[in-house]
Amino acid sequence: MKKIGFIGLGTMGLPMANNLLKAGYELIVYNRSMDRVKLLEGELVTAADTPAEAAARSEVVFTMLSADKAVEEVVLGRGGVAEGAAPGLILADSTTIKPATSKKLAQVLADKGIEFLDAPVTGSEPHAVKGVLTFMVGGNKEIFDKCFPLFEVMGQKAVYMGDNGTGSTAKLANNLIAVVNMLALAEGVTMAAKAGINPETFMKVIQGGGAGSGMAEYKLPKIYNRDFTPTFKSDLMYKDLSLISAFAAENEVPVPALSMTKEFFRILLNKGLGHEDVCAIVKLYEEWAGVEVKK
Amino acid sequence: MKKIGFIGLGTMGLPMANNLLKAGYELIVYNRSMDRVKLLEGELVTAADTPAEAAARSEVVFTMLSADKAVEEVVLGRGGVAEGAAPGLILADSTTIKPATSKKLAQVLADKGIEFLDAPVTGSEPHAVKGVLTFMVGGNKEIFDKCFPLFEVMGQKAVYMGDNGTGSTAKLANNLIAVVNMLALAEGVTMAAKAGINPETFMKVIQGGGAGSGMAEYKLPKIYNRDFTPTFKSDLMYKDLSLISAFAAENEVPVPALSMTKEFFRILLNKGLGHEDVCAIVKLYEEWAGVEVKK
Repeated sequence: MKKIGFIGLGTMGLPMANNLLKAGYELIVYNRSMDRVKLLEGELVTAADTPAEAAARSEVVFTMLSADKAVEEVVLGRGGVAEGAAPGLILADSTTIKPATSKKLAQVLADKGIEFLDAPVTGSEPHAVKGVLTFMVGGNKEIFDKCFPLFEVMGQKAVYMGDNGTGSTAKLANNLIAVVNMLALAEGVTMAAKAGINPETFMKVIQGGGAGSGMAEYKLPKIYNRDFTPTFKSDLMYKDLSLISAFAAENEVPVPALSMTKEFFRILLNKGLGHEDVCAIVKLYEEWAGVEVKK
Repeated sequence: MKKIGFIGLGTMGLPMANNLLKAGYELIVYNRSMDRVKLLEGELVTAADTPAEAAARSEVVFTMLSADKAVEEVVLGRGGVAEGAAPGLILADSTTIKPATSKKLAQVLADKGIEFLDAPVTGSEPHAVKGVLTFMVGGNKEIFDKCFPLFEVMGQKAVYMGDNGTGSTAKLANNLIAVVNMLALAEGVTMAAKAGINPETFMKVIQGGGAGSGMAEYKLPKIYNRDFTPTFKSDLMYKDLSLISAFAAENEVPVPALSMTKEFFRILLNKGLGHEDVCAIVKLYEEWAGVEVKK
């Protein structure tokens, strides 16, 4: 497979597409605002006027969009992927969406002979740039194997999870854990700071031990350096929290820690801080405790 | 410094003392039940009849006990460390206790010319055996530097936190983060399992990413292998949770995630599971969600 369609050149999609180009794939891209296409490097890239055209000219199409609605429109809407696709096309969707939407898309597309993979990723923009994302993939195992070289170009890991929907489910469970770990970090470091502990020194204690986490590694230095520029925006996290909450309710799984965290992010958004990184959640604790977590 | 007193040969104290012996230090040990002394290896170990005697014969004394009350008795009680200590003795307490108790002991002992370090550790029994604990230490910086070679024998890291009490404070904040990360893991993996995700496959997704954590690394395999034998017992964790809760209240820091986690451990203890590892908290979620998290 050499001709790859790529739809959605946002914060994540753009570096992902660039990594495919660098690896020598021919890219047919579509983005709502086409000036993003100029940001792609190399000569193997051409623009398509519609998602349908991108699909017609490709063997595999990746979508990396904002949410369920955008994916449904781009795939099933007028001028969408399904309209232009020849039977046998593979569509891999890396958007974080409801597992139910992934399952529905897979069913509808199967009727048209299109293979669907839900293939969301963990990692934020820097990981996308370096090509070290983790893909978690639901769908047909043979199709997964076929696409594995593509995942390897954009990621350091691609894990086959099971049937369609399990990729999206794994992503939601992953984000549940990540965001509650973020809350734990914010709560713990605020308590320590209030009692006079330097957070940079505290970082040395927790690193690599039972209290260590990806969130501590990525976010604690941002907190004590007072750098709230987003690698993962709080309002996008709130979107994910809402998806997780709805999914848990549908599956009759109580998620008390996630629910509390969701409400705290609602408070953060209402304070006008939705554009800041998820680590800005520490600002709530700082206000509540009357202390600033800094070096 | 060659003569080291060691008081408290429990799950953690015994391997810590053994590592000092292996490194060539002369050990004078005291334990409430003296048959634990036989478990120490080597010829450089002798027993003392009281903590006072251990103190009289040593240059540095370590205490590794169960809780505040035990430390206060062993240090300030009849036949205690303070009774036998010559001026200039260093007492390093590795028990997880209230920062206020650490500060009080430091003050009382300073009047007698005894130097006090609060030097609790992170890591559980396997880390103690391998000598890879992390010490977080509060007290006089010069005394910390003097004891550094001893910490290095028992640990992989020793971090100087600040004045007396900051070591104990860092430990409580560390455990706050660790236990909430444990809850996040239990909640996320239960949601994933209910939706048909294999937890061992899920482990591959979260490892090393934003949802990764020390707790995930140590505890998720125990969960899906249904191994709830303790490396850190739930009832001891509940003791720590109570200390953290009280400390946060004294310092007027709201700790909502910790408080919820504490109540869930209360439920676990009331189910008669206090003797199991902290990862048994997943059993509550399993019951609530109607699913078992296994391979």
